[in-house]
Parts: sequence; C-alpha cells; structure tokens
Amino acid sequence: MVDVVLGIDIGGTNTKFSAVDKNGNCLVSGRISTHDYLDFSAFLKSLVNEIKISIVNYKDFELSIIGIGIGAPNGNHYTGTIEYAPNLNWTGVINIVESFKEYFENIPVLLTNDANAAAIGEMVFGSAKNMKDFIVITLGTGLGSGIVVDGKILYGKDGCAGEVGHITVFPEGRVCGCGRKGCLEAYASATGIKRTFIEMLKNTNLQSVLKNIPEETITSKKIFEAASEGDQLSLEAFEYTGKILGLKLADLIAIFNTDAIFLLGGLAQAGELIFKPTKKHMEENLLKIFKNKVKLLPSGITSEQAAVLGASALVWKKFKK
Amino acid sequence: MVDVVLGIDIGGTNTKFSAVDKNGNCLVSGRISTHDYLDFSAFLKSLVNEIKISIVNYKDFELSIIGIGIGAPNGNHYTGTIEYAPNLNWTGVINIVESFKEYFENIPVLLTNDANAAAIGEMVFGSAKNMKDFIVITLGTGLGSGIVVDGKILYGKDGCAGEVGHITVFPEGRVCGCGRKGCLEAYASATGIKRTFIEMLKNTNLQSVLKNIPEETITSKKIFEAASEGDQLSLEAFEYTGKILGLKLADLIAIFNTDAIFLLGGLAQAGELIFKPTKKHMEENLLKIFKNKVKLLPSGITSEQAAVLGASALVWKKFKK
Repeated sequence: MVDVVLGIDIGGTNTKFSAVDKNGNCLVSGRISTHDYLDFSAFLKSLVNEIKISIVNYKDFELSIIGIGIGAPNGNHYTGTIEYAPNLNWTGVINIVESFKEYFENIPVLLTNDANAAAIGEMVFGSAKNMKDFIVITLGTGLGSGIVVDGKILYGKDGCAGEVGHITVFPEGRVCGCGRKGCLEAYASATGIKRTFIEMLKNTNLQSVLKNIPEETITSKKIFEAASEGDQLSLEAFEYTGKILGLKLADLIAIFNTDAIFLLGGLAQAGELIFKPTKKHMEENLLKIFKNKVKLLPSGITSEQAAVLGASALVWKKFKK
Repeated sequence: MVDVVLGIDIGGTNTKFSAVDKNGNCLVSGRISTHDYLDFSAFLKSLVNEIKISIVNYKDFELSIIGIGIGAPNGNHYTGTIEYAPNLNWTGVINIVESFKEYFENIPVLLTNDANAAAIGEMVFGSAKNMKDFIVITLGTGLGSGIVVDGKILYGKDGCAGEVGHITVFPEGRVCGCGRKGCLEAYASATGIKRTFIEMLKNTNLQSVLKNIPEETITSKKIFEAASEGDQLSLEAFEYTGKILGLKLADLIAIFNTDAIFLLGGLAQAGELIFKPTKKHMEENLLKIFKNKVKLLPSGITSEQAAVLGASALVWKKFKK
C-alpha cells in the first residue's frame, strides 16, 4: 500500500491529474478535456471516473489516496471556489472543493491558483527546497505570481494576493484584458511579446522573417523561433520584454527582499532569450543593498507533470510538516 | 511594581524614550539630542543615563523594565544593527542591540526600522488591533513602509523588505536620493511634494501666495498652509502627489490583497488634502475585485508619543502572544 496525493491541474483546454507519491513520482497520470464540458457537474463526473479507473488499473501496489490538491485559474485557497475564471466555460462561482469532497469522503481537498501551486511545487519538489522567501512568475497567456514569505504562500485577506500581472508599468500604456491600462502582463507574457513585436514591426526598417506573414498568425512561439535564428526584430522584442519585466522584478525585490525569482511558463521556455535581458534590467534597477544577491532561475521541476506535481505539493506540504 | 517596556525612537535630530505599560500608557518619557553626538558610544552613555534617572525619579510605583524596543532609521531586526543610515552622524555598522545589552543585562532588546515600529504600534495599541494584513506608509522626508502579512511584519530574507519608497513610478523620472530615477519617494513625500510644487511653479499661469518667496524656503508645511487657504497651485501639488501615491497603493493592493493602508508621518498630517486625492486615484486604479474594499486610514495613535509607543510594541507584541 502506497500513500499518494492526487494532483489535479485544471486548465482552459485540458485537465491533467497524477497520483503523486511523497518523493514526487507520478505513479498514475491521465487527462480529460476541460473545454468540451459546458457544465461543471458533467466535467467532474467524467474526471472522477477517469481517476478511479486509472487508480484501479495500477497494478504495482495498492494506492491509498490521502489527499487531493487542485490548481486552477482563479482558484481561491480560502473559499475553495473558482470565481469567474476568464478561460473556463463555467460561469459564476464554482464550489470546487465541496464538489470533490462529495466523491472523495474524509479526504482533505485543497485548492489554489495555478501560480501558487507552481510555487508550492518548487518548495516541495523543485529548486526552492531550502528557501523561505521566493517568488514564482508564470509567463503564459497572462502573467501570474506565487509569492512565498517566510515559508508560506502570501494569500492576503481574501486569498486574492499575487496579482503581479496587474501592477502598472505605464499609467497610460496598453489596454489590458482587465480593462485597465499599462499592466505588466500587457508587456511581459506570451500575449505581451506578440503585441510588442507587432508594434515594432510597424515602426522599423529592420528586416524580419515574420514581416510578410499575416499579423494574426504571429505567435510568441514564432517570435522565439525567429529570435533563435538571429532575427533582429524578434531579438529586440525579447530585449524589450526583458526590460519591462526586469524593471518590475526590481520593484518586487525592493518590496519583498526575496531570495530568488523563478520564471516559469511558455515564455520562460525561451531560456536565455528572456532570462538574459530580464536579469540585466533587473540588476540595473535594483537598490544597491540588493544588487547581485537575488537569483533569477528557471523551474527546478523538469517533468512535464510540473503543474500536477505543484497541485499535489499543496497537500504534501501539510503532511510533511 | 509595574512592568514596563522601554520604547526608544532614534531620529536624526532627537532620540525619544518612554517607559510604556501594557496598555500603552507612557509612564515616564524623555529625550536627548541625537545630532549632537558624533560618537555612538557617547550618545548611548548619555541616553542610558537619562533613562535611568527618569526611571528612578518616577515615584508612583516601582518600574520593572522587562524589555527594550528600538525604532531607528535602517534598523535591521535580524542583525540588531543600523547600517549607513543617511540621516545619522554615525557611519558604518552600529551594533545597537548588543550595545544596549551591555547596559541592560538579561533583558530582551529588539530593533526594527521606524516604519515597521509604526506598523507594530498600530497592531498593538492603534487601529489595526483586529487586522492581520495591512500596510503602514510613512510620508516624511522620504517614504517608508511597514508591511504586515498574516499578523507578522514582512522582513524578507535579510530584514530589508518594505522599500516601497524605491519602487519605480517613471523609469526616466526624477533623480532620487538613492541614485536611481523615478522612485515613488521622489514624488510622494515631504520632499516630493516640494519638488512637484516648484516644477509646477515654473510651468503655470496660476497665482500662488508662494510665488514670490525664495525657492529654497518653500517647504511641504508652507504648501500645506497655502492649500488650506485655498491656494490653487498648492492644491494642485497635493492632487498630483495623491495621484502618484494612489496609483502605487493600487499596485500594493494587487500584490498583497491587504485589508487597510495607513498613511502616517508629516505629510499625512495634511488630512483630507492628501487622503482625498490618494483615495480617489487608488480606487480608480484598482482591479475590480479590490474596489471599495480597502480602507485608507490615518494612524489610530493620536499620542505625540506614537513613535516610542510603536518601538515598545515591538516587545509588548511578544509578551502578549
């Protein structure tokens, strides 16, 4: 009999799960579509069914589920609910923790948002095992953050802390998805670098391999590929993205006196192309007392299962105390 | 016999102390000059002498000193030292906690910076008694902050967290005392509003009672007095200061999901002149989920002894746990 925690990562497109042992091994994994279910109850029924079949089919040992950790967009740790997540079909308030408990009785179920789950994953299974103060920045469609203060996630009064994507860079800057202007995530995210690139394209004489393709087909991935081949305009888009991100990471360091900042998510996969300019501009903007002291790191979890590992870590952290 | 904590507030000009009982009554108070002592040892000897005389001369009860709490510019809670405080005569690293312990044996001595002391004062004796997440902003010559997360001061890895005065408002903005550009305290502080006023004076047709006095004699106090009398340019300087401060308080709320923000210090004494524009621009810049939820408050400690009360609270908080 092996104790496992179910780690569940609810994304806009797919929902992934793994039965994770205390060492971070994913013994059983699976996924179902999130997008296909317009109704949360139907989604949950399918997910639970898929999980139970996988667990039963696992032959090496008997698996004992001792807890469930869930990472989801807008997941609120305090209330156990998802509220108005922009990329999910389900509108209103979804009481996700209570709903899971109906299927899994007497098992602790914990929820947090995806960026916090990533931060806890780094603490339990990744590169932040010996850190008490660090920040995880997820650079995906938007910009999320998981902030760890003295060994604990910063949740704030209502569990809504960490909206670093919506601190203001330019008071009269780009319109953001939140309806405000000049937010960090309008610059430093997959969407942000695309907007930067398209703006640059209109105001440059530089050549670019992406110059003659339709604007709507430009993606952060194509900009990355072009930059990797030395495309000058794509390299400038990365430089500018790193400049804005570095400037605001310096603000976070002034506020938190943190030990390390991890960059995760799609855009962070660009490696040195994003790390190098970010690090440079972060250092340039730091107060003297913080210079050359803060590590800027990629995730220490190389597994494709990073998100479910993070979700499971939410529960493992409690048991390991 | 009454238990008291010595609260000591070391300022650039004067150092104040009080023997504070558990209800926040200052039973004995005194002060000596800080500025007159070029040497820390001589300063400390005089201060201790003054304290001992005051305690002995107190006739109502016998006072038993059970701890010493010290607030000082750049005071580091972790190391017990003051390092390179810009407004103090003493250069280098002053090992202040150890030095006090030589005079007061077997008594706990705790140090923090003045903004953190103010935050702890608010928690123990002021308006934050029932709050676990709040931020104190001190608007003096510079801008300091004491950030409380889940009932504890945010110190960060090395005790240097809370440098909110040095987050960037305008990347190419005003030169700041720290050597960088566009820092919040170059706009939102007594010095900041003076700079704003002088800039406005050069670019306006508006009349002002301060128009014909020498530039170097303009102070934030004079701008406040003029604004109180309805001086248009002075009112605009307050409006602009509140605009910048409100914008960055919205950033802090996005990051911390805090319950309340307290404005303290000289410039906060201007009351509605600074609170009103700050509140307006803070609300305008908040994410929807935070709108109309965060209180913007003056200190709940009306005593002139606020700083020494805060310093003593550093120790009382430990004993009251």
